[in-house]
Amino acid sequence: MSHSQTAQPLAIGVDVGGTAIKTLLVDAQLRPLHSLTAATDTTSSGATYASIVQAIEQTLASAGYATAQVCAIGLGVPGQNDAQAGIVRLAVNLHWQDFPLTARLTDHFGVPCFLDKDLYMATLGAFRFDNPTRTRNLAYVAIGTGLAAGIILDGALLRGPHGIAGELGHVIVEPSGAPCNCGVRGCLETIVSATGAVRLAREAIARGDVTSLRDRAPLTARAVYAAAAQGDGVAVAIVDRIGAELGRALRTVVMCYDVEEIVLGGGVTQAGEQFLRPVLDEWERQRRRAALARKVLRPEMVRLADPTRNMGAWGAAAVALERVMG
Amino acid sequence: MSHSQTAQPLAIGVDVGGTAIKTLLVDAQLRPLHSLTAATDTTSSGATYASIVQAIEQTLASAGYATAQVCAIGLGVPGQNDAQAGIVRLAVNLHWQDFPLTARLTDHFGVPCFLDKDLYMATLGAFRFDNPTRTRNLAYVAIGTGLAAGIILDGALLRGPHGIAGELGHVIVEPSGAPCNCGVRGCLETIVSATGAVRLAREAIARGDVTSLRDRAPLTARAVYAAAAQGDGVAVAIVDRIGAELGRALRTVVMCYDVEEIVLGGGVTQAGEQFLRPVLDEWERQRRRAALARKVLRPEMVRLADPTRNMGAWGAAAVALERVMG
Repeated sequence: MSHSQTAQPLAIGVDVGGTAIKTLLVDAQLRPLHSLTAATDTTSSGATYASIVQAIEQTLASAGYATAQVCAIGLGVPGQNDAQAGIVRLAVNLHWQDFPLTARLTDHFGVPCFLDKDLYMATLGAFRFDNPTRTRNLAYVAIGTGLAAGIILDGALLRGPHGIAGELGHVIVEPSGAPCNCGVRGCLETIVSATGAVRLAREAIARGDVTSLRDRAPLTARAVYAAAAQGDGVAVAIVDRIGAELGRALRTVVMCYDVEEIVLGGGVTQAGEQFLRPVLDEWERQRRRAALARKVLRPEMVRLADPTRNMGAWGAAAVALERVMG
Repeated sequence: MSHSQTAQPLAIGVDVGGTAIKTLLVDAQLRPLHSLTAATDTTSSGATYASIVQAIEQTLASAGYATAQVCAIGLGVPGQNDAQAGIVRLAVNLHWQDFPLTARLTDHFGVPCFLDKDLYMATLGAFRFDNPTRTRNLAYVAIGTGLAAGIILDGALLRGPHGIAGELGHVIVEPSGAPCNCGVRGCLETIVSATGAVRLAREAIARGDVTSLRDRAPLTARAVYAAAAQGDGVAVAIVDRIGAELGRALRTVVMCYDVEEIVLGGGVTQAGEQFLRPVLDEWERQRRRAALARKVLRPEMVRLADPTRNMGAWGAAAVALERVMG
């Protein structure tokens, strides 16, 4: 199928991850035309870049559009970026340091390209496309290897002068807890993250707890949630602990920002209800005890991101289109 | 001394507290002319109101100005306010419920009056008048009976749709800790507040710890800090604990908002260095361990509010003047 005669400009959003690249092709009305997921080749700086080019070209080819029809490309990239200059300052997993991503892509595709932190693109995506109540105050909490939140206040993304606003993964919740990668003990993401789930599982096994987790290889967060779903008591205790900790952290999010919607995204949340239920259980425990909690922690505020859509690619596509269409 | 011939318009800022009313008279260039502190008579709704009128009139009389020279009055009030309508919705300690404060005062003084939460007025005061680095991202943390933060992001006060943004006192830091007034256990303000200091002191005494706190009556936060200053080991442990907890909470503030200045105000901070040192000790412990902490938790970011000036009255005076002068 070829649509090369279509005059309407298209935009592409790209969510660049250390494992996979996810694309979304949209028309000028932000209607989705095609999306794909491709593996990221991170063997070198150039390989990562080539993976992105290939994913974009493949998206167009699969959908039957020509490169000439694309008017803009938006990209969400993990790491430290200079969004204004379009330069990735440091993305360790992608082997990029001071990499001029947008300039390179503009040279290649001949269209304006826009870069931002992957978390910000996903947050904008959730705000625009996964916001049924149309609130102007929303938090998108990404829970994967680590944990971080993107925050929309009165309709605008909170960036902060040093780009650390929303680094909730490094809030200390257990002062004498496990060492965090950051160097201190007991950061939220030592518990609420894929890394945290695996650590808690390893500790249970090392303690000699009777659990089916012993036989799971590889021992991943997904395996922990799967074991919990099958009624493994040790796994249930782990996912309950993660949920209680996240429930308290989301209370912090509400108290700090006064957001009206909290969208939970990232790999770990793919466990679905198994992931969400213990979080809401913690809120319910607080609501039973406290009028303040009943007033400000309403269960309908918290939900899982739509698992069928990549919010990072959606946000990146919207940003790209808005920048060129004005 | 009489200045009644002066044509220049004046403004008055009022910080209304459950114990004391603090006023500040400024000229059109926001230069301070006079300030006073008067006791609040909270025996009834009307008595509280009369205390405010009297404090304002006394301020003008003491400074030798006539009521006619005042062009606006700003007021910071604890509790739930409808700032737009000028109505105090609920201020339990002042015996006010749906009290039309600005309408009453405008009737009396014949000038526009402006009302806002006392915390917001103090935050605006700190941002305008106690901000040597001229940052546009600042947190003002008020530590008294409870704890709450006012937040300035990119130069604007964060209000949030329900007025709870900055309610850090109800972040849970010790899930199985002491019961909080709000109903759940282990909120930050069960430890970091005047109430928290007194509770920890009472617990130490009840445990049978050897401490001079036994002989202090009344047993107040001030008494705990005074005992710590005199080397009482139990009191030192309490102020160290409060400082460590607040240090972690201020890390949360930085991670959440990316503020560049944190001003600590409120009654408990009048203990001065005795209060501040353990907070910075906690940051120093984190900095010794972690590059992230060394980067984002710079000790010069945290300081005590100027104890000689009431930031609430300063903020209220500035708001009043700006509203009428445009």
